[in-house]
Amino acid sequence: MAETERSGRPTLAVVGATGTVGSVMLQILSQHADIWGEIRLIASPRSAGRKLVVRGEQAEVVALTEAAFDGVDVAMFDVPDEVAARWAPLAAAKGAVVVDNSGAFRLDPDVPLVVPEVNAHAVRTRPRGIVANPGCTTLSMIVALGALHAEFGLRELTVSSYQAVSGAGRDGVDTLRRQLSLVAGTQLGTSPGDVRRAVGDGTGPFPEPVALNVVPWAGSPRADGWSSEEMNVRDESRKILGLPHLPVAVTCVRVPVITTHSATVHARFEGEVTVGKAREILATAPGVVLFDDPAAGEYPTPADVVGTDPTWVGRVRRALDDPTALELFVCGDNLRKGAALNTTQIAEMVAPEFA
Amino acid sequence: MAETERSGRPTLAVVGATGTVGSVMLQILSQHADIWGEIRLIASPRSAGRKLVVRGEQAEVVALTEAAFDGVDVAMFDVPDEVAARWAPLAAAKGAVVVDNSGAFRLDPDVPLVVPEVNAHAVRTRPRGIVANPGCTTLSMIVALGALHAEFGLRELTVSSYQAVSGAGRDGVDTLRRQLSLVAGTQLGTSPGDVRRAVGDGTGPFPEPVALNVVPWAGSPRADGWSSEEMNVRDESRKILGLPHLPVAVTCVRVPVITTHSATVHARFEGEVTVGKAREILATAPGVVLFDDPAAGEYPTPADVVGTDPTWVGRVRRALDDPTALELFVCGDNLRKGAALNTTQIAEMVAPEFA
Repeated sequence: MAETERSGRPTLAVVGATGTVGSVMLQILSQHADIWGEIRLIASPRSAGRKLVVRGEQAEVVALTEAAFDGVDVAMFDVPDEVAARWAPLAAAKGAVVVDNSGAFRLDPDVPLVVPEVNAHAVRTRPRGIVANPGCTTLSMIVALGALHAEFGLRELTVSSYQAVSGAGRDGVDTLRRQLSLVAGTQLGTSPGDVRRAVGDGTGPFPEPVALNVVPWAGSPRADGWSSEEMNVRDESRKILGLPHLPVAVTCVRVPVITTHSATVHARFEGEVTVGKAREILATAPGVVLFDDPAAGEYPTPADVVGTDPTWVGRVRRALDDPTALELFVCGDNLRKGAALNTTQIAEMVAPEFA
Repeated sequence: MAETERSGRPTLAVVGATGTVGSVMLQILSQHADIWGEIRLIASPRSAGRKLVVRGEQAEVVALTEAAFDGVDVAMFDVPDEVAARWAPLAAAKGAVVVDNSGAFRLDPDVPLVVPEVNAHAVRTRPRGIVANPGCTTLSMIVALGALHAEFGLRELTVSSYQAVSGAGRDGVDTLRRQLSLVAGTQLGTSPGDVRRAVGDGTGPFPEPVALNVVPWAGSPRADGWSSEEMNVRDESRKILGLPHLPVAVTCVRVPVITTHSATVHARFEGEVTVGKAREILATAPGVVLFDDPAAGEYPTPADVVGTDPTWVGRVRRALDDPTALELFVCGDNLRKGAALNTTQIAEMVAPEFA
């Protein structure tokens, strides 16, 4: 398509275009309906000048400066918190609607936290010109929970995560691959400390070995023994669902999976629930795939879910001792719905304002 | 020690001596105080004649026959359910106390299900001459929960497991190693289906690839979408704790770890709890190690726990929205406390009856 045919369409900026999530954003923009005029790729000065492909065309990365936002209508950010905290307000001041995937604004009361399938309406009220994208762990489950909440009324959540290493970026993936190459083909993993001796203590972004291991920690320490990741899942879920007092108990655990976060969910509702009705809701909810026939070997696993858009739900059971509670196992690609896809969906919701 | 010095001491049989758990039983017998007279190694006829080392001496494996139990005082069984169902009563009829680690008798009301740190008293009442050892998933957490229950009174449990492949025996370990050697050094794990294409569909004992994956299934299908493993954790926990109506919600998930099961636990108690008191209980409970200082990088992981005896507990937090609930992350070596160690502990409790 020639540039002139795109005139009149909104200009999109992708800030952090060279990162793990940025790369997936470019893939998704190439796959989705082409609603954008210019797509401007922005990254740190050291990446400026690199050429990346989007919509089948090469585009040159420009350095992150105020001038880079000239004429930008919508800007998707995937950069570290402190970079977003500085640059998102500057982009907004220049007239762009910022859709930010950092943690800098998610709990800001003047910034909506949006999941299009759950609270699309919230995107219209954005006093700071910024819309926040939830964290990948929250996004791995919230579409399914939003659908069930709309029908049954959520009363309490207990969540345990099985988080992929790409949630910690490219360094997380490289670290797992390096550790796996050290343990593959060995007899490691059956004696005390042998994995630790082989791979060293925590390396890369992980405090402990992650190959042949699970690590009950993600994020940074908060009060009373909680991790930032656990607090975020609680606070983001409450904000998205519009339930500021929802009891939410979360334990976040890293597992040796490259991409796709999983979670077990124990969800208690206002009244009695049935598996039949829950399955009907999940089977028809936008953005959800119900994959649930264990006797036939059907339940979601990261190996099946990676690279796909929806939230996959399986192992749907009513608690045996509580007719108001459901058990679920959910999976979502943490780079797509958990990051790049949801951010792009929000940008696409905003785009018509600039048509 | 010459055989004569052992006269007067009870005779122990190890049935299934050549298996994964049997091998660990022999290790543990070599490490523990030497209270036994003869230790007779029993296995299937195809393993008869093999020589194994126990207490530093070679012993020859004899075939499983009725005559193999002549003069046996205590017999530890680690064999498939159907083998145990047939042979444990025969051994008991010949006068041996059977300590069985299969699933055949765990929920039999005439068979006590014993964890020495929690319900040692139950071992004395065994109308069938059989004592059952709980499953490895229950054992990965129950010592810690028993200690907390004794103080606070347990009212509800929500459990998610992170189960090691050796819980499925040698075939489980071989399957993960084979799959890991296929994916190590590759870029697999980031595109849909690439792990599945590399390692095949479910192989060995697992219905789905387990390398670079997590699989929300263990055991065989039961009613209403539950797995046998999940039902067992519920039913065994109730029986061991003496709480036949305890609400227990469980989701069992297999992870690519060789040995050591982990679990997240959301435990609700009769009244208000404090983290301080919970930590005091866990720090002093027999069979428990409290390892809980996240800011200093201290929480249990399988890489640290494998090969050790205790139940390790970390990430102790009070639920933010419920002063009666605690969150825990627990790890236990599924071959030691989860199988061979607890079975041996029970046998050692019974041994003095034959001194």
